[in-house]
Amino acid sequence: MAQNIYDSEEFFKEYIQLPRQAKGLTGAPEWPALRSMLPASLTGAKFLDLGCGFGWVSRWAREEGAVQVLGVDISENMLAKARTFPADEGITYLRADLDSLVLPPSTHNVAFSSLTFHYLKDLPRLITQVYQTLLSGGTFVFSVEHPLWTAPHNPHFIQDSEGHTVWPLDRYLDEGERVTNWLADGVIKQHRTLATYINNLIEAGFTLSAIDEWAPSEEEMAANPGWEKSRIRPPFLLIKALKLVDQKVAT
Amino acid sequence: MAQNIYDSEEFFKEYIQLPRQAKGLTGAPEWPALRSMLPASLTGAKFLDLGCGFGWVSRWAREEGAVQVLGVDISENMLAKARTFPADEGITYLRADLDSLVLPPSTHNVAFSSLTFHYLKDLPRLITQVYQTLLSGGTFVFSVEHPLWTAPHNPHFIQDSEGHTVWPLDRYLDEGERVTNWLADGVIKQHRTLATYINNLIEAGFTLSAIDEWAPSEEEMAANPGWEKSRIRPPFLLIKALKLVDQKVAT
Repeated sequence: MAQNIYDSEEFFKEYIQLPRQAKGLTGAPEWPALRSMLPASLTGAKFLDLGCGFGWVSRWAREEGAVQVLGVDISENMLAKARTFPADEGITYLRADLDSLVLPPSTHNVAFSSLTFHYLKDLPRLITQVYQTLLSGGTFVFSVEHPLWTAPHNPHFIQDSEGHTVWPLDRYLDEGERVTNWLADGVIKQHRTLATYINNLIEAGFTLSAIDEWAPSEEEMAANPGWEKSRIRPPFLLIKALKLVDQKVAT
Repeated sequence: MAQNIYDSEEFFKEYIQLPRQAKGLTGAPEWPALRSMLPASLTGAKFLDLGCGFGWVSRWAREEGAVQVLGVDISENMLAKARTFPADEGITYLRADLDSLVLPPSTHNVAFSSLTFHYLKDLPRLITQVYQTLLSGGTFVFSVEHPLWTAPHNPHFIQDSEGHTVWPLDRYLDEGERVTNWLADGVIKQHRTLATYINNLIEAGFTLSAIDEWAPSEEEMAANPGWEKSRIRPPFLLIKALKLVDQKVAT
């Protein structure tokens, strides 16, 4: 079972004040890039939102025409907040651990997840679940903290001896648990290499469609001092994969 | 046109003494991983070796049953050395710049390249050439210096303030020319992100089959002091992609 830090009151009271929670999608600078990976039209789609949090994307999908949205999260705090928004019979919120969730086969057109999978212990299992719950032609789009961010002992920029700001990368290839102090002490993440994310998708049957080592645009960096450090080490990894008919790659 | 450092005498006299040149494939520790990405049998195959150097892989492909091998390199020095091995009418060595090479359409079963593409200025052009020279069902396998290696101003391990050995990553997202002093001063490489390598393949029509952020095995690290640093930052990126029939991914 994944750690459920979101139901720690200490963590949650800080978390709820982050721009991406308080403002929703407009507070998440990578959202336009993620949105561009999703189908242009969601009209009539069945949409799966894994790690839905406050439901910002679940509600957006409904506004875009999705007929049915399943939002899943491990956190009671998050789902309680999601339920404070006006009720929508097209959205179902489900409390479940993504490390053990079993999804109905051949049901969804689109599966989505934002900044959730780096908490999971058994990602290959979930990816296989996503593959089988998608219909043929279905789209899977997700973001995670970039492996370059999750890898190091000390995930903070430092100065080298010449005064360059550098990211002190280490233990990149050593996958597994990372304990960080972000908003609260002892937040547990799982570090995976970029190769692992990609190979897990291919091994489950997905066809990779695009990846984005996301960083802010020139305009966003100019407007947000400090964001230029993202050029040194991208904060997020965005991936789009497709379930194509009879296209499992022979190896 | 790509820089042709291999025809610099200063560079070449050092280069020729590297284990992977002097010993051939047994001197290249990543070779077993690359070999495992190639088809199990090459019997009857037409094999393309881009940046063939001394021809180690070209000759290996013939031994494995390839009927025709085209080895291409920009360096006269390298090809002269390749021609010192016993002549084989199944191998054609061609001197050409991969930044402008035009390949015959629908000809090859397998395209291969080892540690060459990070010297090229226009990789998308070459990848498109490779796609169209492959037959349907064809395999494309290549290695490059890992983007984490090519990115930094100072591509050498440093100690952080706590005494950890770290890789001083910077300007990862800033693609383009990198000048390093490796065997000779002023060796020019082109830094590309991992996303760019992958997206270039997908945009050309390839289906990604596997990627390997290669590092030595436990046994190799034990036998070669210093190699354990590869766990901090993998030295090589290995990619396998397939040309599948009518499988260009809709985006």
